[in-house]
Amino acid sequence: MNDERSILNTGLRGVTIATTRISDVDGKAGKLLYRGYLAKELAGKAGFEEIVHLLLFEKLPDKTELEELRSRLINERSLPEGVLAALGAMPKQALPMDVLQAGVAILAAHDADIRKNSQEASIEMGLRLIAKLPAVVAAWERIRNGKPPLEPKAELGHAANFLYLLTEKIPDEETVQFFDTALVLHAEHSFNASTFAAREVASTRAHMYAAVGAAVGSLSGELHGGANTRVMEMLLEIGSAEKIEPYVNEVLETGGKIMGLGHAVYEIDDPRAHILAPMSKRMGEKTGEPKWYEISTQLEQAGKAAFKKRKGNDINVNVDFYSASLYHYMGIPKDLFTPVFAIARIAGWAAHVIEEQFAGAAPKPMLYRPESEYVGNYCGPAECAFVPIDQR
Amino acid sequence: MNDERSILNTGLRGVTIATTRISDVDGKAGKLLYRGYLAKELAGKAGFEEIVHLLLFEKLPDKTELEELRSRLINERSLPEGVLAALGAMPKQALPMDVLQAGVAILAAHDADIRKNSQEASIEMGLRLIAKLPAVVAAWERIRNGKPPLEPKAELGHAANFLYLLTEKIPDEETVQFFDTALVLHAEHSFNASTFAAREVASTRAHMYAAVGAAVGSLSGELHGGANTRVMEMLLEIGSAEKIEPYVNEVLETGGKIMGLGHAVYEIDDPRAHILAPMSKRMGEKTGEPKWYEISTQLEQAGKAAFKKRKGNDINVNVDFYSASLYHYMGIPKDLFTPVFAIARIAGWAAHVIEEQFAGAAPKPMLYRPESEYVGNYCGPAECAFVPIDQR
Repeated sequence: MNDERSILNTGLRGVTIATTRISDVDGKAGKLLYRGYLAKELAGKAGFEEIVHLLLFEKLPDKTELEELRSRLINERSLPEGVLAALGAMPKQALPMDVLQAGVAILAAHDADIRKNSQEASIEMGLRLIAKLPAVVAAWERIRNGKPPLEPKAELGHAANFLYLLTEKIPDEETVQFFDTALVLHAEHSFNASTFAAREVASTRAHMYAAVGAAVGSLSGELHGGANTRVMEMLLEIGSAEKIEPYVNEVLETGGKIMGLGHAVYEIDDPRAHILAPMSKRMGEKTGEPKWYEISTQLEQAGKAAFKKRKGNDINVNVDFYSASLYHYMGIPKDLFTPVFAIARIAGWAAHVIEEQFAGAAPKPMLYRPESEYVGNYCGPAECAFVPIDQR
Repeated sequence: MNDERSILNTGLRGVTIATTRISDVDGKAGKLLYRGYLAKELAGKAGFEEIVHLLLFEKLPDKTELEELRSRLINERSLPEGVLAALGAMPKQALPMDVLQAGVAILAAHDADIRKNSQEASIEMGLRLIAKLPAVVAAWERIRNGKPPLEPKAELGHAANFLYLLTEKIPDEETVQFFDTALVLHAEHSFNASTFAAREVASTRAHMYAAVGAAVGSLSGELHGGANTRVMEMLLEIGSAEKIEPYVNEVLETGGKIMGLGHAVYEIDDPRAHILAPMSKRMGEKTGEPKWYEISTQLEQAGKAAFKKRKGNDINVNVDFYSASLYHYMGIPKDLFTPVFAIARIAGWAAHVIEEQFAGAAPKPMLYRPESEYVGNYCGPAECAFVPIDQR
């Protein structure tokens, strides 16, 4: 499989480049493992903080360990004044993912431990980012709406505190539980594009923040994390059940794609989607607005059927498909869906950066430095002769 | 070569992953081509703005094209007030590469065209970054020293304007010529780690700034762009000619490395080093401080000889080795050497991002999504059974 021709210009699809102890995605079986545990088993049973412990410290915590981790995260939740000032200086129309990428680098500038180069220091930086990214996203939502950012509440868990910072309302328990589960399901997914970007940057011995800044940039693309925002835009564009069929037909006729259908790795449905869908359904009932869930589920069926009929093969729902309506029901603005993806995936990014920096399987750190094939041939097989500007 | 076992955990070394029309590095022959032209032929003959034209528009400009490009860059040189305000809010002890990574994302937040998705818009963003990164680096040097950033001078070329913004002195012509040549030599180097990071991010359809932000993060690592700062630290640590031999011996005995010797791709001397060395020598004479060049050249010889003797193979000088003393002679603080690398390499990054986004050889954009081999095996061949926290 990994022969030279099949690799060229295919985005390393199907090419196994490294070993990892963090997670396993079995695309054929539709299985996702976090350090040995099935993600779908963890979802709803273990909270996001437990998953952070599992990913960063390689085990599910006992009660004492969990309390200790919770305290560390709570202590790191607030943002330095200088970070808030910098966010306050951003233009209100800025893309939230640009603000988040800036925010990560600005947090680096404020980290007094930034020159420390040890596994301990890197874990500490990872935990700071896990604690602070939600605060950056929520602060930006407030700032761009002309409101002052809120102070975090130490009595709230990680998921509840974010929803409070964002909406100024203490969310009900069921909503918190659903959001927490969504964070768990988005926390880690092996060498996806953003995680690979983080590892690539860490491989040069750059620090945790530099690597996470790259990951945020990668996640922003619409072929990656940007897709959940695009799913919501699609649902809003469709708007009602009777418009689903014409929409699907038009997309397939114009060679477009139905956002949230199709995945780079899974050959059957994304296991995460089946957990997100019923949460979206329940939130539709709770909010008295079942429409977005209903459009989603009917669109899933119509899209799958139309794809099968026209192309002859199956297309499968991915993690973004039902997270869109779920987040919408929680009052999260659609252009913050991708930043919300980031505040979950930061757990996986941090684990991968630490593995790349300190615990990789290679005998010593090897920076990523692939080769490319030069096809310029501007002057035939020989080099171009330089001509001074006067004679061009 | 590209079989599965040889790829695993080797940072994709020697693995050809994509085609490119931008540049070619022939490590065996020690040749570096920018769009068909030998970099060592261009150096000293074509200025940095000409190279920007060559890399972004695939040809060396004629006089009219060069004048047009110069005007575009001059018009984009200053920083929005909000960007200066955000830089002003950074802690003075921040790492300059963190400030630069933040600066790139903050510039994105201020770009009114950020939502445009076309090759034209992407080129425009690339040119803005080429014009503005020097201003960010120079502004940060002023701000951290408690001085207000300077206004750019439209009558100065790209290289001269940066040195002026940094030092508040109009540099002499020879110094400008040397700095310009250093920018040319650092402008592009195919799929090095930072450029690969930029392409990886662009492959998700993220925008130019998001990709360049990742590249800045990658360049900051000491195995990549961070090395030029480390070379200068090493020269300062050695301090005088008689300490070279003990230094080399100690490094080799403790399994350390001599910064600036060795390269991931070149098997003979880096062709760029041979152009940088005489410029460093001349600047040593001009400034009446020949010591740093002399230590460099003696260290090169001593390091090569000791390496040959102990390890039996050749080690070669790379681009960072003589750029360190050269930049030092120009009055550039050593922790800005890596940002200075960035203000040159931005030309190559921009060209690669555009190629990845719009002009790649693949039939359609393919995001980078490699596979990894899971070696966790926490619970043997089966999945781990979930145990609730009460029973852990």
